[in-house]
Amino acid sequence: MSIKIAIAGYGNLGRGVESAVTKSADMELVAVFTRRDPTSVKTRTGVPVYTMDRAVEMKDKIDVLILCGGSANDLPEQTPAMAKYFNVIDSFDTHAKIPEHFAAVDAVCKENGTLGMISVGWDPGMFSLNRAYGQAILPDGADYTFWGKGVSQGHSDAIRRIEGVADARQYTIPVETALERVRSGETPELSTREKHTRECFVVAKEGADLAAIEQAIVTMPNYFADYDTTVRFISQEELDRDHKGIPHGGMVFRSGVTGFDNENRHIIEYRLQLDSNPEFTSSVLTAYARAVYRMAQEGQTGCKTVLDVAPALLHPASGEELRKNLL
Amino acid sequence: MSIKIAIAGYGNLGRGVESAVTKSADMELVAVFTRRDPTSVKTRTGVPVYTMDRAVEMKDKIDVLILCGGSANDLPEQTPAMAKYFNVIDSFDTHAKIPEHFAAVDAVCKENGTLGMISVGWDPGMFSLNRAYGQAILPDGADYTFWGKGVSQGHSDAIRRIEGVADARQYTIPVETALERVRSGETPELSTREKHTRECFVVAKEGADLAAIEQAIVTMPNYFADYDTTVRFISQEELDRDHKGIPHGGMVFRSGVTGFDNENRHIIEYRLQLDSNPEFTSSVLTAYARAVYRMAQEGQTGCKTVLDVAPALLHPASGEELRKNLL
Repeated sequence: MSIKIAIAGYGNLGRGVESAVTKSADMELVAVFTRRDPTSVKTRTGVPVYTMDRAVEMKDKIDVLILCGGSANDLPEQTPAMAKYFNVIDSFDTHAKIPEHFAAVDAVCKENGTLGMISVGWDPGMFSLNRAYGQAILPDGADYTFWGKGVSQGHSDAIRRIEGVADARQYTIPVETALERVRSGETPELSTREKHTRECFVVAKEGADLAAIEQAIVTMPNYFADYDTTVRFISQEELDRDHKGIPHGGMVFRSGVTGFDNENRHIIEYRLQLDSNPEFTSSVLTAYARAVYRMAQEGQTGCKTVLDVAPALLHPASGEELRKNLL
Repeated sequence: MSIKIAIAGYGNLGRGVESAVTKSADMELVAVFTRRDPTSVKTRTGVPVYTMDRAVEMKDKIDVLILCGGSANDLPEQTPAMAKYFNVIDSFDTHAKIPEHFAAVDAVCKENGTLGMISVGWDPGMFSLNRAYGQAILPDGADYTFWGKGVSQGHSDAIRRIEGVADARQYTIPVETALERVRSGETPELSTREKHTRECFVVAKEGADLAAIEQAIVTMPNYFADYDTTVRFISQEELDRDHKGIPHGGMVFRSGVTGFDNENRHIIEYRLQLDSNPEFTSSVLTAYARAVYRMAQEGQTGCKTVLDVAPALLHPASGEELRKNLL
C-alpha cells in the first residue's frame, strides 16, 4: 500500500518532486495537475497530466497533494483552495506572510477535516527547525543564519530588469571571516555588509553602457546597496556554460553558554551545500508528504509546519528499526 | 505554573541540569535525589537533597524526574523503577542496548500511565535526529559520523589502568582530510584509522617504564590498536592546568544525490563544538523534559525517544510565536 502523491504545478519544483518520489519505495506518483494545456506537458516518468480544475474528480485517488507553485502568486490561493479536498503540502517561503497563510490554510483544513502543511523546504524548513532546536537547547545564546554560496533568483531577476542587460546570474556568498568568528566562539554583532557579499555575472546587450549598468547594480536599494557587490561582464556563452546550475545552501548557527558562571560555550552548526536548490526543496517536501499522510491517518487535521512533525514520521522505517539502527 | 523538575543523581550531569533549569523561565527545580548521605551533598542553588528512596513520597510534587546516573549500572535499573511513579527522562547511551532499555521502560510506563523518554543527549540524541532527517530527505546517500575533538572518558580510564600510569587524558580527533573528502562531495569508504586519531596525555609514576606504557597504549585492542595513536608524557601540573575540561563534539553528515540521473549532490552537515560534554547533554535533557511534560499533559504514555518529539514541544514559545519569529 503505497502513499499516493499528486503534484500541482510542473516547474523545477514539480519535476524535483517527481524525481524524489522515484527514490521513495513507499510512494507512488498518480497525477500531475497544471494550468497549462495538459497536452503540452510531458512528464519525465510518463505519469498523466490533467488540468488543475480536474483535480477534484480525483479526490479519492490521492493521499497527499504537493503544491509546487510560487509563493508570490500561486500558493496563497492554491493551498487553501486545494485543502478543501486534499491533504496538502507547500513550500510557501514569504517569511513575513507565514502567519496569514497559516491561518487561511488552517481554517479550510479544520472545516473540511484535512491536513495542510506549509512552508516546507530549507528556509523556511530545515533552517527553521535548527533555529528551534538551538534556542531550546541553548536558551542563553545567539542565532546566526548565513546563505550561500548560491544563486538568488530574485536578485538575478532584478539585474535583468536594468537597461542594457541581456542576462544575469547573482551569487550570494557568506563572508569567510564572519563564519570564522562565529565558529571560534565569538558572538559578534554583524551588519548586513559583514555577513554576505554579492557577485554578479552580467551579459550586456551590444553597445550597452557597462559603467552605467555596474553603477545601477551596486547602488540598487534593498538588493545591492547594503552589500559589497562585484560585477563581472561575461558573454552569454560563458554564462550558459559556467552558471547554468542553481546551487544554494547556507548555515544556521546557535552559539550559547551553559554553567552557573556561563563558563562553557557550545556551538551548533547546521550546514547545507546544495547542487540544486529546487531539487533539495522537493526532497524535503516529499519526505514531509510522508508525515502528512501518517498524521492524517492518525486523524490529525488543520495546518501544521515542520515544527509540528516528529522526525520519525519522515522516515520510511518503523520506530523499532530506527531505534535499533540509527538512535 | 512552572514545570516541576527533580534530579536523580548529582554528578556532572545532575549539576548540569541544575544549571540548565536556572536558564529555563518555565521550569523550577524542586528536589535532588541521591544514593549518598544527603547531608553530605550541597546543591549549588540550595535546592533540597533527599535519599533516593524518599522520591516516591514526593510523587505529586514532581512533573518530570531527570535521571542523571550512568548507563552501565544506574539507568537500566533506575529508569524503569522510577517510571512506575514519575514521568522520566534519561540519557542512556549504550547504543546496542537501546531496544532492550526501551522495552523495559515502555512496559512500566504503559502499566502505570506515565511517559518515559530515553537516550536523550547528543549521541544518541541530536546526532540520531540528524541521521533520521538526512536519510529521510536524501534516501539515496551515505551517512558519516565523526566524533571530537573531545575527551573520551572510557579511553582515559583505560589508560589509567595501565601499570605505571598516575593519570591520563585521551582526545579523539577527526581526521581533517577525511572531513574534507566528505565535505567536497566524495562518498569515501573510510576505515576506523582513516576517520579518527587518538591523542593521549599521560602522567607516569616515578620510575615507570615510559616505553612500556606507550607500547601498552598503542597496542590495546578495541581502544587504540586500530587507530593512529600519539602518546605524550606530561607532568600532573600540566595535565591539571591544560587538560581539565571535558570538551567534545563531532559531525553528522548526509551526502546524497537527487535528479533522474543522480546529477545533483547535496551535503547536510550537523556539527557540535562543546566546551563541556556533560553540560551540553544536560541542556538537551532539560529541553526534552519540557516535551515530556507537554506530551504527558496531552495524555501520552509509554516510552519515547527524540525521534518521537516534534521540535515545537521543546521550545518555551507558543506555536504562534515560533511561526512568526523563527519559521
